[in-house]
Amino acid sequence: MSKNLSQRLADYAAVAADLGVDAVALVPGPNFSRAVGHRFMSNERPFVLVIPADKPAAVLLPNLELGSWDMVGFDGAVFDWRDQTGYADAFAALTQHLGISSLAVEGQVMRVFVHHAFKDAQPDLTITDAEREISALRMIKTPEDIAALRAAIGISERALQRTLDSVKLGQSEKQIEQTLVQALFAEGADDLSFGPIVAAADGSARPHAHAREDYAVKAGDALLLDFGARKNGFAADITRTVFLDHVTDEGRDVYDTVLRANMAGLAVTRAGVTAHDIDDAVISVLEASPYGDRIRTKTGHGLGREVHEAPYIMRGNHMTLPAGTVYTNEPGLYEIGNFGVRIEDDVLITDDGYETLTNFPKELMVIKC
Amino acid sequence: MSKNLSQRLADYAAVAADLGVDAVALVPGPNFSRAVGHRFMSNERPFVLVIPADKPAAVLLPNLELGSWDMVGFDGAVFDWRDQTGYADAFAALTQHLGISSLAVEGQVMRVFVHHAFKDAQPDLTITDAEREISALRMIKTPEDIAALRAAIGISERALQRTLDSVKLGQSEKQIEQTLVQALFAEGADDLSFGPIVAAADGSARPHAHAREDYAVKAGDALLLDFGARKNGFAADITRTVFLDHVTDEGRDVYDTVLRANMAGLAVTRAGVTAHDIDDAVISVLEASPYGDRIRTKTGHGLGREVHEAPYIMRGNHMTLPAGTVYTNEPGLYEIGNFGVRIEDDVLITDDGYETLTNFPKELMVIKC
Repeated sequence: MSKNLSQRLADYAAVAADLGVDAVALVPGPNFSRAVGHRFMSNERPFVLVIPADKPAAVLLPNLELGSWDMVGFDGAVFDWRDQTGYADAFAALTQHLGISSLAVEGQVMRVFVHHAFKDAQPDLTITDAEREISALRMIKTPEDIAALRAAIGISERALQRTLDSVKLGQSEKQIEQTLVQALFAEGADDLSFGPIVAAADGSARPHAHAREDYAVKAGDALLLDFGARKNGFAADITRTVFLDHVTDEGRDVYDTVLRANMAGLAVTRAGVTAHDIDDAVISVLEASPYGDRIRTKTGHGLGREVHEAPYIMRGNHMTLPAGTVYTNEPGLYEIGNFGVRIEDDVLITDDGYETLTNFPKELMVIKC
Repeated sequence: MSKNLSQRLADYAAVAADLGVDAVALVPGPNFSRAVGHRFMSNERPFVLVIPADKPAAVLLPNLELGSWDMVGFDGAVFDWRDQTGYADAFAALTQHLGISSLAVEGQVMRVFVHHAFKDAQPDLTITDAEREISALRMIKTPEDIAALRAAIGISERALQRTLDSVKLGQSEKQIEQTLVQALFAEGADDLSFGPIVAAADGSARPHAHAREDYAVKAGDALLLDFGARKNGFAADITRTVFLDHVTDEGRDVYDTVLRANMAGLAVTRAGVTAHDIDDAVISVLEASPYGDRIRTKTGHGLGREVHEAPYIMRGNHMTLPAGTVYTNEPGLYEIGNFGVRIEDDVLITDDGYETLTNFPKELMVIKC
């Protein structure tokens, strides 16, 4: 195996050793991609890489993936299975080969059918959820990771500018979303980070709204756009909220409150800060405002190969954040039936402070359209 | 609750009763969308709808989704939780409220952390994987489902034509993929069904290849495109393999073999056929050819809200397929290091035969470019 691959697998063996379990299992997803350097599809076919603390790793995969797996340069044991015969025998052979009694898995990635396949093959296998410890290896971004994030964010911001330049009163949320998506791919996105949120007026008060075909934007609306491009395996995530034609005093005041919360979070950001402290700085601004009952979310989440990953920026999470962590600073205020405002930056923590990877202006923007 | 919502929830209560379990649990995904008529995001926040066999349904969800959940018109119990306090209390309250001892879940959709949250709240709760029985409700497509599939497929086929019209020797696989993706959104896609596969030459022999930036297509290459648009919640999935500039005798013979296999599957398709019988018809053609060692996959899978769903078209699956089922007929032959050919149609089973929802020509196509 290449030195890189061996080293990355050793990272997960060390997690298993630290956890006091016999092995770590990874399924296709962000940790798997980091471990093997290639992306594989997560579908109805089980595909698991098991990395013991002190033995060589082994993989179980669908036979049809053997050709792609060759590119990984893995020299451990391979247990492949075919659709026509099913995967039970392969799990039996894998668990017998491994001879382990405890396994740590990624609870946010592995689905129940894989858990059941392990238990069917070896009923006395203890399976624990070590999502946090396994994914922690992705928290400190490498220079290559950060370059990929910058590329994804640049694409996203250029697409946002094109979209805002073309918004017209009377367009549906769906039309605006289509403009945004096309602009993202025109700017070079590999994929979308997630289905974009393009929501106006009362729709903007639903943090995960879907664009409506039957709502035409009108003068005075808040228009919230939360989206991102994916590039080279990394995901951007940016939100801006603008007002169309004019803004009410309430809209301006809510916007200013959210922006002050965002800035308060940045002000305390530097290597060694805790997730709790950032969220506390952000939420305290919102709580001290007249809009405390419109708080619905924490400050944000880590960002990298996954749109939502560790660290989760919330009170009670006393994890200290090292330089190289990237998180989303996305306070919002949402009044159901009225409107919502969210401002989201992607923030790189540095030794002496931070760098906002997002550079799109945050000042209140009223679009004459 | 609306009559529609009540009826759809009753469908899942009936599944629980049939399985002899106390309740069915659904998490955001295709069954959840079918059940509640709206799409919700699957992320690190647990969100579960529990439908007992003989009691009202209850939902556990992140507080921030309450605004979106209001649109569902659900009148059962709601257990919401906030990021700052976590979800353990909500699971405890939910399981206490339900008073159940057994739960059937979607093993292909629910992730391990939700399974663990249930077990932490109620250690004696028996959780079984009933993916097949739960998802079976999606197998027979309604007229609305089929209309959405037709829309998604139409977009996909127009995008394919635009892409093939613009292919040039010397382009990278990645450039061709970018053309395809932009065309999909220009034609009206809501999203991609999955990251497209655009693979030439030896890349086409890897069934789930990623487009390479460093491979320029050349005369004589097989070029395989497997992709689809998503529209109104439904996913198209189509593959065509073309040859660039010219085709070798081997290429022509392999292509003809795969096409005959595809047609053999169609020939046996009608309501009441088993999945086994379709796959047997398809694979028998491949096995009888000189290329039996290039078989890597089953015939295909169901298609609807998910790209891969029941029924899985493979030998050993003796499920009979009713009218209204949509499946992919996608035989392929793949020689690692050489090339692969796959031809994929989306097929609607009817009372007296079938209708191919995909209409893009299947005759061997040599593109002069």
